[in-house]
Amino acid sequence: MGGRIEKHEVPVSGIRRWLEPGPVVLVSSRWQGRANVMTLGWHTVMEFTPSLVGCVIAASNHSFSMIRESGQCVINLPTVELLDAVVGVGNTSGAEIDKFQGFGLTAEPSLEVAAPAIAECHAHFECRLYDDALVDRYNFFVFEVVRARVATAPEHPRTVHYLGEGRFMVAGEILDRSSLFRPDML
Amino acid sequence: MGGRIEKHEVPVSGIRRWLEPGPVVLVSSRWQGRANVMTLGWHTVMEFTPSLVGCVIAASNHSFSMIRESGQCVINLPTVELLDAVVGVGNTSGAEIDKFQGFGLTAEPSLEVAAPAIAECHAHFECRLYDDALVDRYNFFVFEVVRARVATAPEHPRTVHYLGEGRFMVAGEILDRSSLFRPDML
Repeated sequence: MGGRIEKHEVPVSGIRRWLEPGPVVLVSSRWQGRANVMTLGWHTVMEFTPSLVGCVIAASNHSFSMIRESGQCVINLPTVELLDAVVGVGNTSGAEIDKFQGFGLTAEPSLEVAAPAIAECHAHFECRLYDDALVDRYNFFVFEVVRARVATAPEHPRTVHYLGEGRFMVAGEILDRSSLFRPDML
Repeated sequence: MGGRIEKHEVPVSGIRRWLEPGPVVLVSSRWQGRANVMTLGWHTVMEFTPSLVGCVIAASNHSFSMIRESGQCVINLPTVELLDAVVGVGNTSGAEIDKFQGFGLTAEPSLEVAAPAIAECHAHFECRLYDDALVDRYNFFVFEVVRARVATAPEHPRTVHYLGEGRFMVAGEILDRSSLFRPDML
């Protein structure tokens, strides 16, 4: 996976930049001494301050109870270089294998939660469970991002976006339309 | 905007293909005889059957009460050719201007809801409000997609994905990893 990726902390109010485009993420968790990771594509930013992200985590996932019981997770942002690991993680269960070892992912300590970060990812958003009102009905978790670390480069990571049926879209060109925005909308 | 775009109906259980990648969408509504449209980037797929999509619609939007009162909207999928209209719609209020006329968008009848579709978009997902339990707390609407129409071509639309600060990512290359999937995960 190459060398160590240099990262810096960023304000949690600004994480929409990485999550709003809709990438597939790797969600890591720790509960009763064991760590796990799952692939997740159903998430949305919900608020800047507090920094809220909503995620659907199907109850059939081994991670579901780990995250609900611990009340914590880390949302990690993989890039296209990690695509085969992303697919592998999404097609196996933490009840059966150690997915970190199985897919060459490195668990590293987080700043504020017990759940590990995945070193090979571009960014790490450390989360605490903020509201579980819709968990029973829709498996919908509202998390508060409490710390955020992002790779110093590249500025625009080549994230992957799931289309279903085993196909992914890779992040393409960047267009700047800021000149068309009202100043208060930027 | 070119000629009329040929579209066909698709099963509502399959709309994750267009929404899960995280594109900016145009949400149209109709209430008390007036139509409106807003730009929205905070959404997530929540379930296949029923076909559920969660959207954050800030209460400051003119569309907020139109959608809540009517209990309907259409989620339209714009492509990069419509980017300046997408930005214009997001930087103006339906309380002040007719956004269809202002940005060259054509309102056309939907199949099952009163809210119009936007003819220039690649796809239209007709929605009914399914659950407003989190609207007061988070402006979070759970919609059921009741009908879906999608352009016959291209197969992979060049959608736009918002990064904040007036910048957008355009959908890039498609990678097929279906051979790495478990059959029951496809």
